[in-house]
Amino acid sequence: MTIKYLHTNVEKLVEQQEIQIEGWVVSNRGNEKIRFITINDGSSVSNIQTVIKGQLNIEAQTDKISLGASIKVYGKLHLTPEAKQPFELVVDKLVLLNNVDEDFPIQKKETTLDFLREIPHLRHRTNLFRAVMLIRNSLMFEIHKYFQEHDFMNVAAPIITSNDGEGAGETLLVDDESKDFFFKQKAFLGVTGQLHAEAYAAGFKRVYTFAPTFRAENSHTSRHLAEFWMVEPEVAFYDLKDIIALANDLLKNVISNTLKNYPHEMQYLDGLKDGELLNSLNKFLENDLTVLDYSKAVEMLKEYKDEFEEKNIHFGMDLASEHEKFLSDKLIKGPVAVINYPKELKAFYMHQNDDNQTVAAFDLLVPGIGELIGGSQREARYDKLVNRMKELSIPLESLQWYLDLRRFGYAPSSGFGIGFERLVMYVTGISNIRDVIPFPRVSGSIKM
Amino acid sequence: MTIKYLHTNVEKLVEQQEIQIEGWVVSNRGNEKIRFITINDGSSVSNIQTVIKGQLNIEAQTDKISLGASIKVYGKLHLTPEAKQPFELVVDKLVLLNNVDEDFPIQKKETTLDFLREIPHLRHRTNLFRAVMLIRNSLMFEIHKYFQEHDFMNVAAPIITSNDGEGAGETLLVDDESKDFFFKQKAFLGVTGQLHAEAYAAGFKRVYTFAPTFRAENSHTSRHLAEFWMVEPEVAFYDLKDIIALANDLLKNVISNTLKNYPHEMQYLDGLKDGELLNSLNKFLENDLTVLDYSKAVEMLKEYKDEFEEKNIHFGMDLASEHEKFLSDKLIKGPVAVINYPKELKAFYMHQNDDNQTVAAFDLLVPGIGELIGGSQREARYDKLVNRMKELSIPLESLQWYLDLRRFGYAPSSGFGIGFERLVMYVTGISNIRDVIPFPRVSGSIKM
Repeated sequence: MTIKYLHTNVEKLVEQQEIQIEGWVVSNRGNEKIRFITINDGSSVSNIQTVIKGQLNIEAQTDKISLGASIKVYGKLHLTPEAKQPFELVVDKLVLLNNVDEDFPIQKKETTLDFLREIPHLRHRTNLFRAVMLIRNSLMFEIHKYFQEHDFMNVAAPIITSNDGEGAGETLLVDDESKDFFFKQKAFLGVTGQLHAEAYAAGFKRVYTFAPTFRAENSHTSRHLAEFWMVEPEVAFYDLKDIIALANDLLKNVISNTLKNYPHEMQYLDGLKDGELLNSLNKFLENDLTVLDYSKAVEMLKEYKDEFEEKNIHFGMDLASEHEKFLSDKLIKGPVAVINYPKELKAFYMHQNDDNQTVAAFDLLVPGIGELIGGSQREARYDKLVNRMKELSIPLESLQWYLDLRRFGYAPSSGFGIGFERLVMYVTGISNIRDVIPFPRVSGSIKM
Repeated sequence: MTIKYLHTNVEKLVEQQEIQIEGWVVSNRGNEKIRFITINDGSSVSNIQTVIKGQLNIEAQTDKISLGASIKVYGKLHLTPEAKQPFELVVDKLVLLNNVDEDFPIQKKETTLDFLREIPHLRHRTNLFRAVMLIRNSLMFEIHKYFQEHDFMNVAAPIITSNDGEGAGETLLVDDESKDFFFKQKAFLGVTGQLHAEAYAAGFKRVYTFAPTFRAENSHTSRHLAEFWMVEPEVAFYDLKDIIALANDLLKNVISNTLKNYPHEMQYLDGLKDGELLNSLNKFLENDLTVLDYSKAVEMLKEYKDEFEEKNIHFGMDLASEHEKFLSDKLIKGPVAVINYPKELKAFYMHQNDDNQTVAAFDLLVPGIGELIGGSQREARYDKLVNRMKELSIPLESLQWYLDLRRFGYAPSSGFGIGFERLVMYVTGISNIRDVIPFPRVSGSIKM
């Protein structure tokens, strides 16, 4: 039985059968006659307070049980209308499984996030990381659930690939110990599953990937990792408008179900943001998504150029993180889908608009984060695609299979990629991406 | 609307509102007056037959529409009690989106699996791969659903690690283009998420990973890939008996829900095995799982030593694939959990039994495949674990964090790993692992 279950089923359980709880000690106070041990089992940020009267059936010296120790307790639930907590467990029996050594680094006293990043194998035993990882799990499952309920098929796009996807050049290489081309050619860690997902969309219509992706990012920012998870739906017979509607509906579903299923965790995280987190998320849930042309966005940003480090705001510029955030945080005051970017800023495979200078791309920007989603309608026209690749000097040969999709019953297809950790940041209000993934990977170090 | 939905909601839809179907042509026959185009949209192995009378509202030359072309049709459903198929769509309007060039390699005529392995971007447009990938998707989601419904939290164990997990030495290395230690040390692609999952089980109690794992396997067998997906639950407060019960319950749930939700696909696959597939799966679902001591298994195999290439059957031997299959296929005639292996055969982290020669490990063997799952109770005792690592000359330093888990409120923990592709093989009856993953990766080549 989990503590989360106890909290939602108190009435049913009070004074009923003996309950067994296993977990880790959060606090321990009292004396020989009466002792209060609070326990958490990871199912929730909520704990349960247990009461031990005397030393009945208890082998361990209860006053020596420290924060972090693993224990099992047996007892009955009692309502405590007079006390801070609504109920407590009156213990009949207690088993101490493993106490903690004195150097256990998680203590009551405040610790910094920097310090906790040094111990990723232990930091989840704080309330903050407990909440973040439970929300992360909820978002993960709600994404799968949404897609499955909407007739999407999950595709395992390969991690090891022969091409570097977006041509960004920031790829990691793979080989065996002998460094002798295990795959008989250069092999990369995938930066996207999109091209492979497109092949599967041509046949299964609605597909998605949910898998780790990799970038050899050398920049140490609060928004980048060398290893992160991406969610990439791809839908045949969809155009740009359809796929933006999907992104909007997916996000709203996933977020609103998470708020519903993890109210204690969200309240806890909201408290760390002075109530601004739930406000902002609910505002998104309640409003239509703003869709804005890139050219219009540039016009709007021009009026505020003094706010930015990069003040040369013009059509053709790549929006920097500061511009994206300003647009979403200050001007739109919520998520915004910016569409129709200049083709020079975007990847070769995007649908070329009739104006000959923009592509049917969109970036979804959210407050506090900037880019959360990037997507596009794909170029369905073989000749247009080939010409664009030639313009960009992308070798055709290794992507001939991808081009061929256009010759074999291709249906116009659209898709996007969600940086999953950025979504977790958005929903939890956590400002550093290293704190929303269990074991973050950045250049220069591998911790655990 | 999907064709799968049509098939399960015919009554509701017949003669009702106009229906729109998008998909790919499976066959096209008829003449100027009447034409039958059969369509599949990837939602099912079942197709829909459409009937086109005359050339009303149809721009395309319908007789030129080839197998594989993408089309949209609009029309109404009619029951056809006299015909082979139970209903058909009478077309009001048809749009041809993209026909196929003549070299489209998927044709009506039989093609070999070997040939299809050369075109992983197109082979899913056969009924066989359609069925396999739909079942794969179902198994994936049912695994997530089972864990979520049983209070498990998903953990993203890192893919890039500093240690090679099981010490098998068959790891792939990662670096950036400059080969200058992007991570300032040797970095591997993970062979297991277990050690990291254990850290999270100490705090969240019930966790699981579901992610790609990697082996630099040079052997080209029908059961091995360089990149494959693993499912690794880890449960604190669980011993060997508990974790075997979990494996059994998980498999039975996931398989029985998949049989329920994809009856057409399972019937199709069963047909390729002369009805032996569903028989075998149902037998597993209906019976208790056999649990067998390794020493007993060796005694049983000894009596059949002439059946094997490796005839020297003795306590201490590593069971080869031929022994595992024989045990499951011929002796137990179903899945069997072999437990308590000699410690020399297993990894350093397994719980050492009191007999001082075996560990609390289990392998779950299934008919036709051999090992599907490997798991164990973990060694909770710090000193025992350190001593075993020293015996095996495993450097302590890089795993000190893992050892430390035992000093900080460790609760005895157990877990296992399912080779996900092997599970797909088991449920689909497919005999080569390269045919149950969209883009298989093996040494010597990367296709697409």
